[in-house]
Amino acid sequence: MLTNRRRSVLAVDLGGTKTITSVILSTGEITCRKYFLTLADGDPRQVIDRLLSALTETMAQAKLKTSEIAGIGIAVAGVLDIDRGIVTTSPNLPHWRNVPLRDIFADRLGVVTYVINDASAAALGEHRFGAGIGFDNTVYLTVSTGIGGGIIIGGEPYLGVDGCAGELGHMTIEADGPQCHCGNFGCLEAMASGWAVAKEATMRINRGERSSITELVNGRLEDITAETVAMAARRGDRLAVDIVAKAANYLGIGLANLVNIFNPELIIIGGGLSKMGDMLLKPARKVVKERAFQLPARTAHIVRARLGSNAGIIGAAAYVFDQQDETKK
Amino acid sequence: MLTNRRRSVLAVDLGGTKTITSVILSTGEITCRKYFLTLADGDPRQVIDRLLSALTETMAQAKLKTSEIAGIGIAVAGVLDIDRGIVTTSPNLPHWRNVPLRDIFADRLGVVTYVINDASAAALGEHRFGAGIGFDNTVYLTVSTGIGGGIIIGGEPYLGVDGCAGELGHMTIEADGPQCHCGNFGCLEAMASGWAVAKEATMRINRGERSSITELVNGRLEDITAETVAMAARRGDRLAVDIVAKAANYLGIGLANLVNIFNPELIIIGGGLSKMGDMLLKPARKVVKERAFQLPARTAHIVRARLGSNAGIIGAAAYVFDQQDETKK
Repeated sequence: MLTNRRRSVLAVDLGGTKTITSVILSTGEITCRKYFLTLADGDPRQVIDRLLSALTETMAQAKLKTSEIAGIGIAVAGVLDIDRGIVTTSPNLPHWRNVPLRDIFADRLGVVTYVINDASAAALGEHRFGAGIGFDNTVYLTVSTGIGGGIIIGGEPYLGVDGCAGELGHMTIEADGPQCHCGNFGCLEAMASGWAVAKEATMRINRGERSSITELVNGRLEDITAETVAMAARRGDRLAVDIVAKAANYLGIGLANLVNIFNPELIIIGGGLSKMGDMLLKPARKVVKERAFQLPARTAHIVRARLGSNAGIIGAAAYVFDQQDETKK
Repeated sequence: MLTNRRRSVLAVDLGGTKTITSVILSTGEITCRKYFLTLADGDPRQVIDRLLSALTETMAQAKLKTSEIAGIGIAVAGVLDIDRGIVTTSPNLPHWRNVPLRDIFADRLGVVTYVINDASAAALGEHRFGAGIGFDNTVYLTVSTGIGGGIIIGGEPYLGVDGCAGELGHMTIEADGPQCHCGNFGCLEAMASGWAVAKEATMRINRGERSSITELVNGRLEDITAETVAMAARRGDRLAVDIVAKAANYLGIGLANLVNIFNPELIIIGGGLSKMGDMLLKPARKVVKERAFQLPARTAHIVRARLGSNAGIIGAAAYVFDQQDETKK
């Protein structure tokens, strides 16, 4: 019984908006799940304190003691130095600079802790328990407010030398394009993410273009999100349809790059914008066929993610189990 | 003695301009090396016949019988289906469509044969015997008439599902950029390769811009190459300096993408244009620092290749030895 219980991991997905805490078994089963608002504008210490309380509550709810936890896995939206367990910087957590996240949790809770980039974790989650089962060379792209990526090679996450590989949203696809939150210009994220779509809509309406989006937000243009634009596009709004088509084109360019670079079996698209489904993915797939080499374009199936917002926690847990199996070898 | 001799590989680098044949030992030592002009405009069968003759001559010169050869490794400038040993298509070998290169050589010479993309081979060559020794996560970029790439992950070449991964020159960095030889638009190759540099110079001189390049080619603008432009730039020619600076900027954008995607230890730059040295690489490195995330940009050393035009044959030989070690396991 105890042995079984010890195969539980405390898994966290620490995002710019929401933080999920959970208990996950090695089968991928989620036995407990809670979330709180990250309130990322505050001091990192406040976020960390909230997360420590949430983890304590989660364990209490799951009736687990720290001694019964195999480890803590924290998927975090940031550029990680994985060997040192540090969040060096994060577009989604603006005040985080070189935060030693791993050691803080290991010290305070007395449980071995691992950190991993959230999109890399989601890639691993989808590979082990979602849309990527059986596909050992897979690229994962999460198209949400921002755009993140994760790479699976030979069935394992490819994390790079520091642990920050897979920043696929920050691949320049338009050299002189608009500035991205990361500081660079013309990143895939600056052309096809949720924030890019919302910004484009706001800008064009402010410039005088007419759109039903204005009514959808009751005239409060600052409330426009990618979801509003998608809703208007579904109803045939001309501006919204045009903006979604442009985002799909840029997404297709990014995907074509990944096809030519990785020649993968599978590309999995997750994140909020993937819910647009064919409106976004059909034209994006067409761009891939037009722009990438024929052979890898034929090989790479482009599909939607399956695990939704649980991909990160499931992947973070899988990462902990993998690391511990590695240690035992 | 015989055992030793059998550790020789017949290694070929089949390029758009020149084809090198060689005998290489498992130590990376080249014991024999010849080349002939590919004359790629002709029928693939003629190229193959010339290569068969050249290999027979190379063996004769090295005093080796086919029974003494461990295998044949052919590095070829094309999009390969590696499991089937087929060159599906090639920007540098215009008439090649689904040519079963591996089986032709295996059948005609009675020696086990492997094919690998030329830039992937060069990456492996540099990793084992050149600038990349000891760096297990390395990206190789050859900036020549075209731009090719090779990826080393965990000390092994990453070839993708079909064997055509690493087409790093055909990553779009300027969505609406000029058309590339591959059919796509705004590829890194279309912005920063030898042909792109020569084309830009020709176009701008044709439009009336003055440049000492015109004298360097005795007024025959069709003779302009990247080397001519580099020579003029070294002498301070304003047009040439501007063109090289633009190419360096685009190269830097491509490198920044690779830094964000792979978080590699090392990026090796080979190919003819790398001979420009600091004139090209210094500004490119600066762009990487400006555009990529800080942590991976600090980690990735960007260096020049060491093996020159031998990288492909040395890598092709290493690939054969690797495959055979794999078979023995």
